[in-house]
Amino acid sequence: MRLKDIGEFGLIKRFQRMIKTDPSVIKGSGDDCAVLKWDDYNYQLFTCDMIVEGVDFRKTDNLKFVGRKAIGVSISDIAACAGIPTHAVVSLGLPKSMRIDQADLLAEGLFGLAKEFKINIVGGDISVSDKLIIDVSMLGRVEKNKLCLRCGAKAGDLIMVTGDFGGSIKGKHLKFIPRVKEARFLVDNFKINSMIDVSDGLVQDLGHILKQSHRGAVLYESLIPQSRQAKGIEDAFCSGEEFELLFTASRDQANKIIKNAKYSYKVIGEIMPESFGLRIIDYKNKYVKLKTRGYRHF
Amino acid sequence: MRLKDIGEFGLIKRFQRMIKTDPSVIKGSGDDCAVLKWDDYNYQLFTCDMIVEGVDFRKTDNLKFVGRKAIGVSISDIAACAGIPTHAVVSLGLPKSMRIDQADLLAEGLFGLAKEFKINIVGGDISVSDKLIIDVSMLGRVEKNKLCLRCGAKAGDLIMVTGDFGGSIKGKHLKFIPRVKEARFLVDNFKINSMIDVSDGLVQDLGHILKQSHRGAVLYESLIPQSRQAKGIEDAFCSGEEFELLFTASRDQANKIIKNAKYSYKVIGEIMPESFGLRIIDYKNKYVKLKTRGYRHF
Repeated sequence: MRLKDIGEFGLIKRFQRMIKTDPSVIKGSGDDCAVLKWDDYNYQLFTCDMIVEGVDFRKTDNLKFVGRKAIGVSISDIAACAGIPTHAVVSLGLPKSMRIDQADLLAEGLFGLAKEFKINIVGGDISVSDKLIIDVSMLGRVEKNKLCLRCGAKAGDLIMVTGDFGGSIKGKHLKFIPRVKEARFLVDNFKINSMIDVSDGLVQDLGHILKQSHRGAVLYESLIPQSRQAKGIEDAFCSGEEFELLFTASRDQANKIIKNAKYSYKVIGEIMPESFGLRIIDYKNKYVKLKTRGYRHF
Repeated sequence: MRLKDIGEFGLIKRFQRMIKTDPSVIKGSGDDCAVLKWDDYNYQLFTCDMIVEGVDFRKTDNLKFVGRKAIGVSISDIAACAGIPTHAVVSLGLPKSMRIDQADLLAEGLFGLAKEFKINIVGGDISVSDKLIIDVSMLGRVEKNKLCLRCGAKAGDLIMVTGDFGGSIKGKHLKFIPRVKEARFLVDNFKINSMIDVSDGLVQDLGHILKQSHRGAVLYESLIPQSRQAKGIEDAFCSGEEFELLFTASRDQANKIIKNAKYSYKVIGEIMPESFGLRIIDYKNKYVKLKTRGYRHF
């Protein structure tokens, strides 16, 4: 048996079964970040993301944006838990033939986005690799009463998103701005029941919320905000690396969010009981079947 | 200009100049771990290490030991700061063709060593990569008064080590046991002025202590504990990935360490004023010139 036979999520599950954690760990593997005890009022968040040449970016992509992406995906994970990113370490696998001006561009992107978000880069490791590889591990903090996880969705919650969806591969996956402000505004002013960032695709990531919350959902095709780059509704549903927030809140809270929001949040569906499953309703009020749900590495 | 023209350490220095940190960072890039504010009595340690197939291990190496090494190098970094490792996240770049039993072996090594050291594995990221890549980021804690850095060596300190040196490539680099116990015993009972783990090579890593402490040193060839695998004294001086502790303490403390030690610590030289440089004295009381100082990626 090879990895592709059990798939990425199968392998993760297999590994998770081998791991035990102690009471310092509020939430281990399985959410956007690990949640660790910190002090009386705050948790510490801890996450890592690896990006690989030829998989997550092309050799010909501008390395400034590759650097931005490398750190942006981890910032987005912290945002998904409604936290504030604080510190990061960076491991680089660099080709021997790399030019110094290329390394500078990469660093400019990495450190530039870190600076925008006031993140301290506090260490790293440099290794040689045929293909460029960047792994960023990040710490953040979040007030205990503001932490958002994937597991808190309730039947009757409205499902909401930031931004629009589809065609991220055409540029957004390198140039997105992680939604920290948008997430903090939500938890500073409203009660959010569950949240995730859209990295695998809208439907697949909603699937993670549903699974961990033991709920079902209905999505309305007509409500999905499609980007100009989207190749149609299927693309909006399945496009990975959009790095938008997908969250749920009670109808009452959702109404307040829409009325009072400083940023744009849109309703795209509703959380249902688990037995309902996940159903997508199209313009003609018919169920949609998707060919694929989103991105998997294998 | 390419990376090899400025070298690994030149690139690190170039990156370090681009980074600023805030007062939450006690020590950023440039030591074995970053040191972050934690509470009134403790600091948090944060480190990352990436290992790459064909560079840090061979395709034919037993993946259980590859997994051990991947996490062992980070544990060793925490030990070098005299800390206790607590939490880790693991990024894996896996070849699509990998068999599941191979992935299991890798996990067995990784999670097995984590368990031995009571480290919580709290998350990770899985990506596809032509060559196997493992990056581990680790958190630890250390009492403020027990923290050891590279920068505290004083003229007159004796230079000491755990274990023996040379020929790590023949097996030790995959099977070493990180020296957490040995480091903790030291700081629990004695005053240690500076410490590092030997990853680049004895002489090169001593060089890091000397540079950051603004000191010189003398090493005595006859005092260097050579392993059975060592190909001679040059190998003992330069062999990388020994993952032993190299530390300095006042003559008084060093004598107490040797008298009372639960573990084996050996004196190999003495810290001198900076102007002395680094001199190695051979069996015939002559200066030794080394052909190389240790491992560099490029």
